[in-house]
Amino acid sequence: MKLRDLPTPSLVADAAALEHNLAAMAKALPGARLRPHVKATKCTALARRQAAVGHRAFCCATLREMEGMAAAGLGEDLLLANEVVDARRLGALDARVTVAVDSEETVAVAAAAGVAEVLVDVNVGLPRCGCAPEQAGRIADLARRRGLSVRGVMGYEGHAVGIPERDKRKEACEVAMARLVAAHALVGGEVISAGGTGTFDLNETATEIQAGSYSLMDTAYAKLGLPFRPACFVWSTVISASPGFAVADCGLKALGMDHGNPSIDGAQVWFCSDEHITFKSERALRVGARVRVWPAHIDPTVAYHERLHLVDGEDVLESWPVDLRGW
Amino acid sequence: MKLRDLPTPSLVADAAALEHNLAAMAKALPGARLRPHVKATKCTALARRQAAVGHRAFCCATLREMEGMAAAGLGEDLLLANEVVDARRLGALDARVTVAVDSEETVAVAAAAGVAEVLVDVNVGLPRCGCAPEQAGRIADLARRRGLSVRGVMGYEGHAVGIPERDKRKEACEVAMARLVAAHALVGGEVISAGGTGTFDLNETATEIQAGSYSLMDTAYAKLGLPFRPACFVWSTVISASPGFAVADCGLKALGMDHGNPSIDGAQVWFCSDEHITFKSERALRVGARVRVWPAHIDPTVAYHERLHLVDGEDVLESWPVDLRGW
Repeated sequence: MKLRDLPTPSLVADAAALEHNLAAMAKALPGARLRPHVKATKCTALARRQAAVGHRAFCCATLREMEGMAAAGLGEDLLLANEVVDARRLGALDARVTVAVDSEETVAVAAAAGVAEVLVDVNVGLPRCGCAPEQAGRIADLARRRGLSVRGVMGYEGHAVGIPERDKRKEACEVAMARLVAAHALVGGEVISAGGTGTFDLNETATEIQAGSYSLMDTAYAKLGLPFRPACFVWSTVISASPGFAVADCGLKALGMDHGNPSIDGAQVWFCSDEHITFKSERALRVGARVRVWPAHIDPTVAYHERLHLVDGEDVLESWPVDLRGW
Repeated sequence: MKLRDLPTPSLVADAAALEHNLAAMAKALPGARLRPHVKATKCTALARRQAAVGHRAFCCATLREMEGMAAAGLGEDLLLANEVVDARRLGALDARVTVAVDSEETVAVAAAAGVAEVLVDVNVGLPRCGCAPEQAGRIADLARRRGLSVRGVMGYEGHAVGIPERDKRKEACEVAMARLVAAHALVGGEVISAGGTGTFDLNETATEIQAGSYSLMDTAYAKLGLPFRPACFVWSTVISASPGFAVADCGLKALGMDHGNPSIDGAQVWFCSDEHITFKSERALRVGARVRVWPAHIDPTVAYHERLHLVDGEDVLESWPVDLRGW
């Protein structure tokens, strides 16, 4: 099949760019130094590529992701890097399962579900999940008292990963990691899990980095000057052309919009609506022309699509199910 | 099943509010005066409720929506209110099919696919699809020359439907509809299709109104003071509680974000990330508490969910597949 023959809108990954990104990351953070976050890509076929370059431990954000990874035989070491109040679905998985806990309630949930291992989730500055560093020892004690094995700590510096200036990003990361180190001193264990695509080579504290977006990338991360290439676009068709602007069939239901509009090379994007993108192109585009729409945020973009098509130039090599969607 | 037993995040519709909205609209625009737009809800079970209160002609934005509606036996009069450059999938449908056309290319596509009927899509002020009003007669002639039956015109005043002040909204609608009337004079036919939830009772030109959001509503439309009730929320669980804020399991992959943050009653939403919403609640919330997250934009929210659960208070009455997702 040729790229031209794909229905539109379709989510497409450039095989060479993807391979470059996987190789660059595997070189920087080989093997267990990276725990790829599958939330960004929601695709076990892509995860299998990550495993093939050496990363066998993975990170998930939802129960569905955990189940799908285990079912795909990628369950050597799965971390649910998120809190849940009902973990029963994890008890039955054919996988090594670790869950994040940050409260008495989530410790009880993990114990009740028969989960064997936990990480204490620590708030390192992003107001989201995670206990205060000074509470981490108490949470670890609660967990051990319930028979859970405490592997260590995790803490996501999500407020730092997108800072444009590299030195300021590093500084914010260091402040965050000082909190995680303080918590780790109270918790113990061999794991300090943290980081993301924006801090993959700045975070010198974490024993493992939880990056996910690096494989497909997006226009927000592209602005940071990271050594990863834009590898994923929404393949779209111009369905209407007017004097001064054109419209393609890629809209709000094909794109995560929280980081703003996507981009089209050689064009200025005006706005998106449910099934449309209106843009002004430098070159005249006829109805039927195809355009590549580059998402601003990869994670919520991927979650809208049933398949991810892998292409080499004009050739469609494989079509992977985005099989970890939903909850 | 009880609401409390639903997994989270889950998309939930309040049966009484939905019924109120369907009845209010059916009273204002009975029968064929409304052509409900299924793009907002992507659910044939909900469309069946709309048919039950008298609306038998529907509007779609994608080929998948057209196929699903036809397969569900709701194909009495289906309008694809959008341009496509490959309409072959429409040729085989067991339904009355009408397609929007706005160019020589889309006319040729419709004719080649064996579609029998078209509407000429007119740009009424929103820079998106649609030909200029003065071109509408030429497009209609092209269509008739290809053997297509031209039912009339359509033109969406999308730039008007969200204007907060009712009189300004009406004025913008009237300016837009003057363009559509001018086009209709060149095209002929019995149909003038236009409008949306925001102009359903302001648009006095259209022979049929293409509203969709009115059934479930969202916080953006709620600000306009329309006679429709908020009927749809994402049911979510508090998974972490810190001093000053709480976090629930409803994030960017459960919400359309182009209209900004969703709302939680009695709380201030700080931000959303992939699987989280961080908010400050007036009342203390414990881990495990449930919250209703009200989406800012219903259409791209629904498109993330596999099911829409209908509830009456604490009772789950039905669980409808959101069966028109994808393309």
